[in-house]
Amino acid sequence: MPEEQSNNSNSKQDQAMSLEKQQSADSMRIIPLGGLGEVGRNMMVLDYNGKIIIIDMGFRMPEEDMPGIDYIIPNISSLRQRAADVLGVVFTHGHYDHMGAVPYLVKELGNPPLFAGPLARAIILKRQVEFPNQPKLKFTTVQAGKRFRLGPFELEPFPQNHNIPDNFGYVIRTKLGAIIHTSDFKFDEDPVNEPPTDFEQFKRFGKERVLLLMSDSTNAEQPNHSMSERIIMNNLEEIFKNCKGRIISATFASLLNRVQQMITLSEKYGRRVVVEGHSMKMNVEISRKLGYMRIKPGTLIKSQDISKYPDEKITVLGTGAQGEERAVLMRIVTGEHRNIRIQRGDTVIFSSSVIPGNERTVQFVKDQLYRLGAHVFHYKMMDIHASGHANQDELKELIHLVKPKFFVPIHGQFSMLVNHALLAREAGIPDKNVVVAENGNIINLTQTSIALDKKRVPSNYIMVDGLGVGDVGEVVLRDRQNLASDGMFVIVAVVDRQTGAVRGSPDIISRGFIYLRESKDLLRETRKRVVGVVNKSAGSGGAVNWVYVRDNVRNTVSDFLFEKTQRRPMVLPVIIEV
Amino acid sequence: MPEEQSNNSNSKQDQAMSLEKQQSADSMRIIPLGGLGEVGRNMMVLDYNGKIIIIDMGFRMPEEDMPGIDYIIPNISSLRQRAADVLGVVFTHGHYDHMGAVPYLVKELGNPPLFAGPLARAIILKRQVEFPNQPKLKFTTVQAGKRFRLGPFELEPFPQNHNIPDNFGYVIRTKLGAIIHTSDFKFDEDPVNEPPTDFEQFKRFGKERVLLLMSDSTNAEQPNHSMSERIIMNNLEEIFKNCKGRIISATFASLLNRVQQMITLSEKYGRRVVVEGHSMKMNVEISRKLGYMRIKPGTLIKSQDISKYPDEKITVLGTGAQGEERAVLMRIVTGEHRNIRIQRGDTVIFSSSVIPGNERTVQFVKDQLYRLGAHVFHYKMMDIHASGHANQDELKELIHLVKPKFFVPIHGQFSMLVNHALLAREAGIPDKNVVVAENGNIINLTQTSIALDKKRVPSNYIMVDGLGVGDVGEVVLRDRQNLASDGMFVIVAVVDRQTGAVRGSPDIISRGFIYLRESKDLLRETRKRVVGVVNKSAGSGGAVNWVYVRDNVRNTVSDFLFEKTQRRPMVLPVIIEV
Repeated sequence: MPEEQSNNSNSKQDQAMSLEKQQSADSMRIIPLGGLGEVGRNMMVLDYNGKIIIIDMGFRMPEEDMPGIDYIIPNISSLRQRAADVLGVVFTHGHYDHMGAVPYLVKELGNPPLFAGPLARAIILKRQVEFPNQPKLKFTTVQAGKRFRLGPFELEPFPQNHNIPDNFGYVIRTKLGAIIHTSDFKFDEDPVNEPPTDFEQFKRFGKERVLLLMSDSTNAEQPNHSMSERIIMNNLEEIFKNCKGRIISATFASLLNRVQQMITLSEKYGRRVVVEGHSMKMNVEISRKLGYMRIKPGTLIKSQDISKYPDEKITVLGTGAQGEERAVLMRIVTGEHRNIRIQRGDTVIFSSSVIPGNERTVQFVKDQLYRLGAHVFHYKMMDIHASGHANQDELKELIHLVKPKFFVPIHGQFSMLVNHALLAREAGIPDKNVVVAENGNIINLTQTSIALDKKRVPSNYIMVDGLGVGDVGEVVLRDRQNLASDGMFVIVAVVDRQTGAVRGSPDIISRGFIYLRESKDLLRETRKRVVGVVNKSAGSGGAVNWVYVRDNVRNTVSDFLFEKTQRRPMVLPVIIEV
Repeated sequence: MPEEQSNNSNSKQDQAMSLEKQQSADSMRIIPLGGLGEVGRNMMVLDYNGKIIIIDMGFRMPEEDMPGIDYIIPNISSLRQRAADVLGVVFTHGHYDHMGAVPYLVKELGNPPLFAGPLARAIILKRQVEFPNQPKLKFTTVQAGKRFRLGPFELEPFPQNHNIPDNFGYVIRTKLGAIIHTSDFKFDEDPVNEPPTDFEQFKRFGKERVLLLMSDSTNAEQPNHSMSERIIMNNLEEIFKNCKGRIISATFASLLNRVQQMITLSEKYGRRVVVEGHSMKMNVEISRKLGYMRIKPGTLIKSQDISKYPDEKITVLGTGAQGEERAVLMRIVTGEHRNIRIQRGDTVIFSSSVIPGNERTVQFVKDQLYRLGAHVFHYKMMDIHASGHANQDELKELIHLVKPKFFVPIHGQFSMLVNHALLAREAGIPDKNVVVAENGNIINLTQTSIALDKKRVPSNYIMVDGLGVGDVGEVVLRDRQNLASDGMFVIVAVVDRQTGAVRGSPDIISRGFIYLRESKDLLRETRKRVVGVVNKSAGSGGAVNWVYVRDNVRNTVSDFLFEKTQRRPMVLPVIIEV
């Protein structure tokens, strides 16, 4: 899949693209380093009067054509010269696409002060433990409605419904005026586990003449209004009410409000709850400790005690609604879980949407559940999952409430940003006041104008693979793709320095190409050709151009193997003179 | 992703699992070799009174964890001893999931007679041209309502709405009674380009006491009724009516009725049509020649003549609605198409659903289209694509019309088969008369009973990779996956036979692991360890166990590289004695 990316960018280039310091109170530069033109990896830079604040620092998961890659994080090379100007990083909420890059980036930015609500803070700190050699994070806890100042910026976190508690949008006030960053949000007038959307706050913001609104585009292509968590709750309750066996529910560990719903319903219907999966356990523990989750004493039991209760008194809460290989549900389904197996009469609830790319594994899990005699409920059969993002009606409503002068759609694929811009136009914002920007763009904002700079800063994918950050670039990735599709074929020929002739029979090491034991003729023929090429080139006496010989061997073998198999393994000749 | 598969099955096993001949007119064996428990690769064997007929012979596309694989075809090893008994292969329609395995399997089955409608026949023959060294296919053209006899079987093809003309279900009559195989179908009372569903025919079938109905489960999890092609036509017409620029439409080449819709609308609104893409051109040509497509003279123009007409008089019809890398739409979008570029004001219509796994490439194409200034319509924004398969209401209606004694859901993932079986129960068929079977199951059918045999025949995936059929098995595939995720690392050490010491510095060839130029220290350290291990093991005098030394090198290097990088490339040591 084509994707503009230039990795292995050298530091000279980086320097050329770095963000020059600008001491002006008349204009602000807003630079998305992630999340605009993609879903995930959210990171936004506000550069004003020589000082910088950053909103969020997320990662995203790799695409299908990036084998072996763990995460993709933002490129912060443009900020490297400006680390001293970074007054702080503020977080909107505790989801990985908003804070997952912290362990990879804070050190590089000189360990700036961090600001987050109590839950996001706890989740970030808990994760940090897995990364040794990191500086101690300098955290300040913020809370809704409490303004705080960072240099020329005054920030006000305000509550937004999403699907995790403590989700904040920010009003950022400077001499230029007020800027609103919505974070991920939806309007929910009857949510579960948190207060309903406070429309009055938006009206208040609207009265102070908002200069710029930056708003979540994730569902800007979805018509109407997002579904209320109350509807989900009611549908889930129908399942609980009628279920005679165990309930096994799989969702994201990060959908904390959904987890709370499952626990609340279990308590109402007299079920004990087994929480399974590292991330699920961790999130429940943190949320409970901080008072974001209400769980009665005695509700939670350990999985080894599951058999002490009748089936109709048991709920299992775990990860794995995406069919993830090592998640709880997969381990239960494949019989690898220590204490839990699927039994006839179990009811399994997939309470999560399926991320593109995961459909086949989810289907595998579903099929397997049916084979084992379970009942399955998933979100396509029934409304048991709602997105955490606002649909078109809500997006327009927000614009009507806030009445911003300028508008920038954030968080989403380019098509979503464009469609969000169309909504803004429908909501009455003139075209010239709407800017569709992508990662790396520099948005110049004054009190009277908004426009994209001609320059861009680097915003390509930085890939994390094991301990390596940014060391896997295009070349390595292309090699991995090639290795995957046809395997590799190494030939080692030992050449006698005296005679120039191949000694013995060349060694062949091949993987992923063909089943070698059943291909002896092919290997014999290949060896013969290698010996022929080497002897012809090297055995003629005089100086030997080994680069030429190697190329010759590579081409001969490649062509021969392709002719015989229509496959193109990576052919790697090694010629050793002795 | 776990998936039960045993490849490289040896011929002994195959023989043990082959289908023994059974000369009985009292019972029939029905054996799905593909399409039951999956979507695609449809192939059904009917074995009765010593004779065999086969319905369809399709392939499916590989899953994401099968790099390099072209197609997956059915395993026919159970039929190998019975090739002489195969009276014919009948095809329901000309889609690859129903006929794509023909070039790989007919020869092995002794080139049996083939039966298909004129369009399916032409498509199969056209494809066969790409496969040299194939026997000449022995084809008989069949037509709706015309019965024909194959030994103990009498077959009657009957018309079914789908999304390609000439789509047949079959009534198969034997002394046991009538069996109905629906093929892919939906009920459409107001279709485009073909007659509406003939409900009278089903009532007629219902009157002759149908013994068994085998019915398409693809949409058995979808509620209500499938959408009529008329609705799609009306929505597409809205786009055509209002469009001021060029229309570029992408769909599957196999959705011939949709292609006809686009051509009909273009003619109505005075647009010339450019048909692009090999498979699209081929299908249009075949259909037109056989009279399945109505195109006025002068409608079709060549892409190089596109600039001779005003934008609002142009439609481009091409493949690529799935974001396929080499399809027309992708080439237009990336600027690689010879004559067509996206220009501001173009309208692009994605008239096809997105196959799971293709969402990200489709999103890439959509984003790029928006960047280039095109308008985009896709099926999630508007009903401009309808599935070709019946939803729950139609599936139940069919059962009510046909009133079969026994029921077997076919075509679909296991979850779809199970849900289709539930629908059959709701439609009044007793549980004991419904059998949910999967590939490789043997269904024993008599006039009074239906049941699964305890035995199964092999039905594992047979993978096609280039010229190889079935030679890529689990081992090769696992190697490809490993190579993809962390690359490979070959070390060649030359050891002096006299001294047992490593000569010079070991060679390292690595791909897909790490950017070597930036990892010189790591390589130096690795070499040092290799020399250390070899010298210690081999230099001690006496006989050297080279297998042990190699294992030792592999483990040492693997552990060292993992410690330094947290990656596990495939480490392959080569030790050469000279």
